[in-house]
Amino acid sequence: MDIISYMQTMGREARQASRALARASTQDKNTALLAMAAEIRASRATLQQQNELDLAAGKEKGLDAALLDRLALTDARIEAMAEGIEQVANLADPVGKISDMRYLPSGIQLGQMRVPIGVIGIIYESRPNVTADAAALCLKSGNATILRGGSEAIHSNQAIARCIQAGLTAAGLPITAIQVVETTDRAAVGQLITMPDYVDVIVPRGGKGLIERISQEAKVPVIKHLDGICHVYIDEHADLDMAEAIAINAKCHRYGVCNAMETLLVDAKVAAEILPRLATAYGKEGVELRGCEQTQAIVECKAATQEDWDTEYLAPILSIKVVNGVDEAMEHIHLHSSAHTETIVTEHMPTAQRFLAEVDSSSVMVNASTRFADGFEYGLGAEIGISTDKIHARGPVGLNGLTSQKWIVLGNGQVRQ
Amino acid sequence: MDIISYMQTMGREARQASRALARASTQDKNTALLAMAAEIRASRATLQQQNELDLAAGKEKGLDAALLDRLALTDARIEAMAEGIEQVANLADPVGKISDMRYLPSGIQLGQMRVPIGVIGIIYESRPNVTADAAALCLKSGNATILRGGSEAIHSNQAIARCIQAGLTAAGLPITAIQVVETTDRAAVGQLITMPDYVDVIVPRGGKGLIERISQEAKVPVIKHLDGICHVYIDEHADLDMAEAIAINAKCHRYGVCNAMETLLVDAKVAAEILPRLATAYGKEGVELRGCEQTQAIVECKAATQEDWDTEYLAPILSIKVVNGVDEAMEHIHLHSSAHTETIVTEHMPTAQRFLAEVDSSSVMVNASTRFADGFEYGLGAEIGISTDKIHARGPVGLNGLTSQKWIVLGNGQVRQ
Repeated sequence: MDIISYMQTMGREARQASRALARASTQDKNTALLAMAAEIRASRATLQQQNELDLAAGKEKGLDAALLDRLALTDARIEAMAEGIEQVANLADPVGKISDMRYLPSGIQLGQMRVPIGVIGIIYESRPNVTADAAALCLKSGNATILRGGSEAIHSNQAIARCIQAGLTAAGLPITAIQVVETTDRAAVGQLITMPDYVDVIVPRGGKGLIERISQEAKVPVIKHLDGICHVYIDEHADLDMAEAIAINAKCHRYGVCNAMETLLVDAKVAAEILPRLATAYGKEGVELRGCEQTQAIVECKAATQEDWDTEYLAPILSIKVVNGVDEAMEHIHLHSSAHTETIVTEHMPTAQRFLAEVDSSSVMVNASTRFADGFEYGLGAEIGISTDKIHARGPVGLNGLTSQKWIVLGNGQVRQ
Repeated sequence: MDIISYMQTMGREARQASRALARASTQDKNTALLAMAAEIRASRATLQQQNELDLAAGKEKGLDAALLDRLALTDARIEAMAEGIEQVANLADPVGKISDMRYLPSGIQLGQMRVPIGVIGIIYESRPNVTADAAALCLKSGNATILRGGSEAIHSNQAIARCIQAGLTAAGLPITAIQVVETTDRAAVGQLITMPDYVDVIVPRGGKGLIERISQEAKVPVIKHLDGICHVYIDEHADLDMAEAIAINAKCHRYGVCNAMETLLVDAKVAAEILPRLATAYGKEGVELRGCEQTQAIVECKAATQEDWDTEYLAPILSIKVVNGVDEAMEHIHLHSSAHTETIVTEHMPTAQRFLAEVDSSSVMVNASTRFADGFEYGLGAEIGISTDKIHARGPVGLNGLTSQKWIVLGNGQVRQ
C-alpha cells in the first residue's frame, strides 16, 4: 500500500476514534491507563526481546554509545514507563471542566468548557518510552493520537503500542485511538503533518533540526520546543549568597537539560564581589567559563565569542557577561534568549516587577533557579514538552495544553433583539 | 524598493515597536486610542476625499453596487469608527493580569501572567473601517500590527492610518506600532505570512477563499474564521413555542451573518406539529425552505440536495432535516457543521448535557438563538473575528485572544534538589 493512503487511512480512523474518546468517561480512560501499565509490566520479556532487535540493528548501523543507551529498555525503564502511566491516571481529568459561568445582560448564561483538541500527531526520536508517555497524556486529555517514533526504535515502539492497545481494549475504547506508524519511510512524516482534515496539532519531540524542519513544512499547528538558552541575571540589589546558590544550581544541577542556565549576566556594581566566589564554585564543579572583557578582567577565563551568547551548550560550559543594570540585562536577553526561562536575583521590588513584566519568555522568575521550569515542578503532573511558542501553550505543556475551550451558552428561550 | 525588503523592514520595525507596546501603560494606550478617535472625527473631510478616489477607481473597475456600498466612508461610518475606538479604550486592559498564583511544595509561588503575543498581521478585504477596529484591538492588547487591506480601499486605509499614527504620536508611542502596507502588490501578502521572525500570528478577515489561501501558504500561526454553517436542533422534549421563537430568530434576525442558522434539525416525534407552524412563520418572512423527504411529506417545500447540508447560504434560504433523536442530530452536525455554533432546544436535562459535552463547535447552546455567538453579546466588548480553529482561541476572539500567558515564578532563593 502506498504511504499516502496508508497515512490517510490512519488519519481517518484517528478522527473517527477521537469522537469516542472525547465522550469517554474519566473512569473508562483511567481503566485503560491502568490496564496499559499492567500490560507493560507483564510484557517485560517481549518488550526486551523486541528492543534487542533495535539495539542490534543500531550497533550494526554504528550508532554511538549515548544513543544506544537512550534506546535500551532496561528493567528500570520499563517499570518507570508503567509508573508514568499510572501517574497520568491519577491526574485530574481536564475534559468537561466548566469555568466562568456568568449571566449576561441578555439573560443568557455564558461559560467555557474544556474539551479535547481532537487528533494529535507526535513525532519523536530514539527514546521508546515517549510512546507510552505521550499516549497516556493524549488519552487522558481525550485526544486520539498518531505516534511516529524514530526508525531506530521501530520494534520497541510497536511492542509498546501493543500493550497500549490491549489497555484500550480492556476499557472498551477503540484501538484506533492510539496508533503507531509502522513504517520507517520518511514520507510518512511528510504526510502526517499535512493532513489538516485528520490531524489537529503536531507535537515534535527531538532535536532542533527535526523541529525546525517540521515547522517549516507543516500545514497544521505545531506545538514546538526549540532550544533553551536560559539566563540568570544577578542584579546590583541581589542577596549574593542567594545569587551564588541559584547560579550554581541553574548551571550544575543537570547539564543536558533545556532549563539549565547557559549565560550568566552580572551587574557591574557587584561583579567584582560575586564573580570570584562563583569562579571558585564553578571550578570545583569543573565548569568551563567564557567571559566578556569585563569578566576576564575579574576572573581567569576564556574569552566569550559572539557565538557563545547564542549557544545552548547542554554541557559544563557557561558564558558570563557583565552588564550595566537591568535594562542592559533585558536587552541582552531579548537579543539572545530562546524565550524559554530567565530568572533575576534581586531584593529590589521595582526591578523584579519590571523584569517579570518585560521579559518575554515562557517562564520568568524572581529569586529561583531556572531548573524549576518543568511540568512536574509546576504541578502539572507530567508534560508533553515545553513550548517556546507564543500562542496556545507556552512553557511546560501538560494536560491543559492538549485541550481547548469552547463557549457554552444556557438560555431559557432568549433570542437576539 | 523590492517587496521583500520593504516587508522585512516593516516587520523588523514592528518587532522593535512591539517591545515598547508590551511595556506601555494602560493609560498611554488609552491616550493613544482617544487621540485616534478625535483625529478620525477631525479628519472627516480628508477621509472622504481619499475615499472618493477609491470609489471612483472602483466604479471604473466595475465593482458591483454592494461592494461599493461597503467601501463608502459615510458620515455615520466615520462616527462609528471613532466610537468603536473609544469603546476599546473603555475595555479592561488584559496585559499583566496575573492568575492562579499558588504555592508549590518546593516553596516557589507559581502563576500565569497575560502578555501580548507580539506582532499581529491583519489581512482584510474592502471595508476600510477594519483598519481602525483591528488597530485599536491590537494596540489595547499591547501588540504591534501590520495591516494589509484590499487594493480597492488603499487610499481610504492610508488616510485612516495617518489618523491612527497621529494618535500613537500623541501618546509618545512609536508610529511603527501600527503600520499599513502601502502597496497593492499581492507579493506583499505572500511575504507578510512567511516572516516568522517578525510576525507572530496572522488574522485574515474576508471570504473563505482568501482565508484558505492564507492558511495553506502561511509559515506562522493563523487565527482563522472559515464559514458558519450553524444548526438548531429541536428535540422531542422541546417547548415548541420556544423552539419556534429560536428557529425564527436564528434564521431571520439577519441573513448575511456567520452565526445565522443554515440548517434546522427536527426530531421526528415533533416534526408533524412544529414544521407546519414554522413553515407559516418562514413564509411570512419570505424564507425559502429546502427539506429532506420527511420534511417534504409534512410541509410544502423544495427538495434539499446533498449539497444543501454543506452550504452557508447567508440568505433567506433554510434546509430542514427530520432526525430520529439527538444521536442522529449530532451525527448530522458532526458531518456537516463548520464547527461554529449549534443550539439544541430541549427541556430534558440529560439530552442537553450530552449535546453540550459532545458537540464539537466553538459555541454550543441550549435554548438560545445561535445569533448570540458574537463578541459584543459575550461581553468581550469587540472582536477581531470568530475563530473556527481548535487551538489557541475558539469562537469570538476579543482582547484575550490577542494575548498569551507566560508562567511567572516568585521564590526566595529556592534551588532544585
